[in-house]
Amino acid sequence: MPFVTVQIGKGHSIEKKRKLVKAVTDALVTALGTKPEWITVHIDEFEREDWAVGGILHYDKHNGRHEETGR
Amino acid sequence: MPFVTVQIGKGHSIEKKRKLVKAVTDALVTALGTKPEWITVHIDEFEREDWAVGGILHYDKHNGRHEETGR
Amino acid sequence: MPFVTVQIGKGHSIEKKRKLVKAVTDALVTALGTKPEWITVHIDEFEREDWAVGGILHYDKHNGRHEETGR
Amino acid sequence: MPFVTVQIGKGHSIEKKRKLVKAVTDALVTALGTKPEWITVHIDEFEREDWAVGGILHYDKHNGRHEETGR
Amino acid sequence: MPFVTVQIGKGHSIEKKRKLVKAVTDALVTALGTKPEWITVHIDEFEREDWAVGGILHYDKHNGRHEETGR
Amino acid sequence: MPFVTVQIGKGHSIEKKRKLVKAVTDALVTALGTKPEWITVHIDEFEREDWAVGGILHYDKHNGRHEETGR
Repeated sequence: MPFVTVQIGKGHSIEKKRKLVKAVTDALVTALGTKPEWITVHIDEFEREDWAVGGILHYDKHNGRHEETGR
Repeated sequence: MPFVTVQIGKGHSIEKKRKLVKAVTDALVTALGTKPEWITVHIDEFEREDWAVGGILHYDKHNGRHEETGR
Repeated sequence: MPFVTVQIGKGHSIEKKRKLVKAVTDALVTALGTKPEWITVHIDEFEREDWAVGGILHYDKHNGRHEETGR
Repeated sequence: MPFVTVQIGKGHSIEKKRKLVKAVTDALVTALGTKPEWITVHIDEFEREDWAVGGILHYDKHNGRHEETGR
Repeated sequence: MPFVTVQIGKGHSIEKKRKLVKAVTDALVTALGTKPEWITVHIDEFEREDWAVGGILHYDKHNGRHEETGR
Repeated sequence: MPFVTVQIGKGHSIEKKRKLVKAVTDALVTALGTKPEWITVHIDEFEREDWAVGGILHYDKHNGRHEETGR
């Protein structure tokens, strides 16, 4: 009963989420041999003002430069 | 100091949440003998586009059919 | 697809865990009308040296006095 | 690679969040000797209708009295 | 800064874990276009006595039959 | 009712944990004005074989070189 939580920055389209949950599920099937129907994936999005590395909010550090933040 | 996190689909009324936290708290009191005031319950709601089973988003699978999704 | 995480102190018997997951599952069925087979419960036990309230480890505060700690 | 999740009530200003992630990061640097750039802090805010102690929602218990709730 | 938590049953070899974190990381790279070095994966293993579906512990339901449990 | 989860590598002494929970609690008191007795801190330790950055297990990357891993 694998349960996967993916914490990512806010702002991904539903199309990207569709690809994400499919790709992550396939990854578990391949690596562990689990049946897909046993696998749950939860996407947990965070605002950039709610995430910090090195004591600095992403909001402050990467404002407007999504591509470089590894959102 | 039990700490309980309940992850459920978005859209429950405050009345349902009231019943939920009461029922979960009572469950721990009964099963473990913990005093109610030691028990914290956190409801963490997810959007249906942020949850998938078998690699398919709930948004795609159960669109508009809440009752059958075990929300 | 409710997913419940119960964080409690280490040291409960499997019999207590059996009662706990049953009682929590029933609580969700009653409060939300969810079918039991949709509900997952995860028990996540912590050591008393890994938990603190008010900046003091349970290990230091409640050493040997389980009943009063709301384990 | 310490990863810290801070669950707090909704409604803190970005200025408070700025102070929070800095203070928590410094705390880990001091206590563990970790380099700041290794430390991630995630702020996870909850609504008062999604949090309960003793089986009673904060929404019901502390409505309008933030200061006393330890938000 | 994606952060992925994979909750699975205990008992996977380090070789399987190696494959798992690689496959999950690749999945995020492909689906989201994130650089691999931004992605953290955390494997969180649970004992079968700490996990239940439908109110029944895996320990009781699937004792000794790993392959069918989707561990 | 702030609830803080600190995920760190395994192997810290109880003395370090004591300092950690005190320092994190003080950080929240200072930044948010919360009373210490409202603050819970949970230390969640991970094995190095259960944590990966860039698709590579810490076990493989940093074997025996704790100081550089930001444990």
